[in-house]
Amino acid sequence: MSGHLAVVGLGPGAARFLTVEAENALAGADALYGYGPYLDRLPTRTGQSRHASDNREEKARAAAALRHAADGARVAIVSGGDPGVFAMAAAVCEEIEAGPESWRALDLTMIPGITAMLAVAARIGAPLGHDFCALSLSDNLKPWALIERRLDAAAGAGFVIALYNPVSRARPWQLARAFARLCRHLPPSTPVIFGRAIGRPDERVSVVTLTAADTTPADMATLVIVGTRETRIVARPGRPPLVYTPRAAAEVST
Amino acid sequence: MSGHLAVVGLGPGAARFLTVEAENALAGADALYGYGPYLDRLPTRTGQSRHASDNREEKARAAAALRHAADGARVAIVSGGDPGVFAMAAAVCEEIEAGPESWRALDLTMIPGITAMLAVAARIGAPLGHDFCALSLSDNLKPWALIERRLDAAAGAGFVIALYNPVSRARPWQLARAFARLCRHLPPSTPVIFGRAIGRPDERVSVVTLTAADTTPADMATLVIVGTRETRIVARPGRPPLVYTPRAAAEVST
Repeated sequence: MSGHLAVVGLGPGAARFLTVEAENALAGADALYGYGPYLDRLPTRTGQSRHASDNREEKARAAAALRHAADGARVAIVSGGDPGVFAMAAAVCEEIEAGPESWRALDLTMIPGITAMLAVAARIGAPLGHDFCALSLSDNLKPWALIERRLDAAAGAGFVIALYNPVSRARPWQLARAFARLCRHLPPSTPVIFGRAIGRPDERVSVVTLTAADTTPADMATLVIVGTRETRIVARPGRPPLVYTPRAAAEVST
Repeated sequence: MSGHLAVVGLGPGAARFLTVEAENALAGADALYGYGPYLDRLPTRTGQSRHASDNREEKARAAAALRHAADGARVAIVSGGDPGVFAMAAAVCEEIEAGPESWRALDLTMIPGITAMLAVAARIGAPLGHDFCALSLSDNLKPWALIERRLDAAAGAGFVIALYNPVSRARPWQLARAFARLCRHLPPSTPVIFGRAIGRPDERVSVVTLTAADTTPADMATLVIVGTRETRIVARPGRPPLVYTPRAAAEVST
């Protein structure tokens, strides 16, 4: 068995977020699998095949890449951000567990990348400066009641909350419902950050308050960070404000 | 004002985790500030000064770097992992808010990096494959009661939990107390991952169950990931097991 599968995190999109390890894995692959727009960001290389698929086809993509690697090829699946954060790594593990015994013997490498919440946070200051959580708002794979329960738990205990997959064509109402739920726990002035396409030409980052947040446009590529009651906004002359969550939490917040 | 301050994430230590953006910022700096062992990982460059400090001196280090940048230099503060995750970015923001008005006018860039939980997760599979949180076990800057409340909230709502700063010479008992607390919410068989120094010669990654976890050695450089009741361990012939949390959560877990 000489095949190899790498699951490679591309970061938020700009080439400057790629790690050395990710660049090497992409350069050395016989075949690339991934969501079409992610593959389109990468330079074409002679002798390297490309297998684009839709963003709802993680399972089929993982299985196809595993089959290809089991045939002896060096295969890379590309993933936006970090493959382990709401991306391809778990889908690949699921297929390995359910698949033929030979897939367990494959040489498998997960290559971490800059996940969206780190890129958005860096762009605006340090909003994740204290304890935080990452929560997908997609109710495709879990019930909405569980999402609300997690929002309650996280906001009630004072975690900063990074919301992945806030909205899609098929899920238009979830984000507003989440903000309404968070208003039960957090003051109206709580800072909320919307960030998308960090490092790309269509980058957009904005800061609003929780009460104004539900009217702010978000799309599938947006990452939302909801602060805590301790999160601070620092005005700067001639520059966008800094938003950060202090390292110290003096008392139990409710 | 021509000064510039970059807060640069080095990732977990190995050069292959550096991003292109981080490399460029380090190469272009007049002065580097940071915890001594982090600076020691970087190549020396002619004309670039180094200012090492202890790992408990974030505040003084941030202020010194800001003063230096305000004098017109290109300054980089280095940070292990990602600067926005329990590292230097929040300390810098705190100093800017408290400091002279001129510091707010500085050109400031936060450069994200691979934070420890992403590196450890990638090494073992996809344990953060579903909703998760990151929690510092240090009670230097927050009361222990708040930490326990957050452990309860996170485990009770089914978040995977990444524990940063699990132990230090001055904080020997916190990790065992945290495991005991988590046992109230999670089955004894819940997978627990210990990872340290990913990509370095002294790398160590192990998987145990929650009941066996409190006897497993951890140190200041260790990152601990506690799974959920859904986290799976997949045995592999001749390879370490894969640990992952499935993307789907079928019902509200308690």
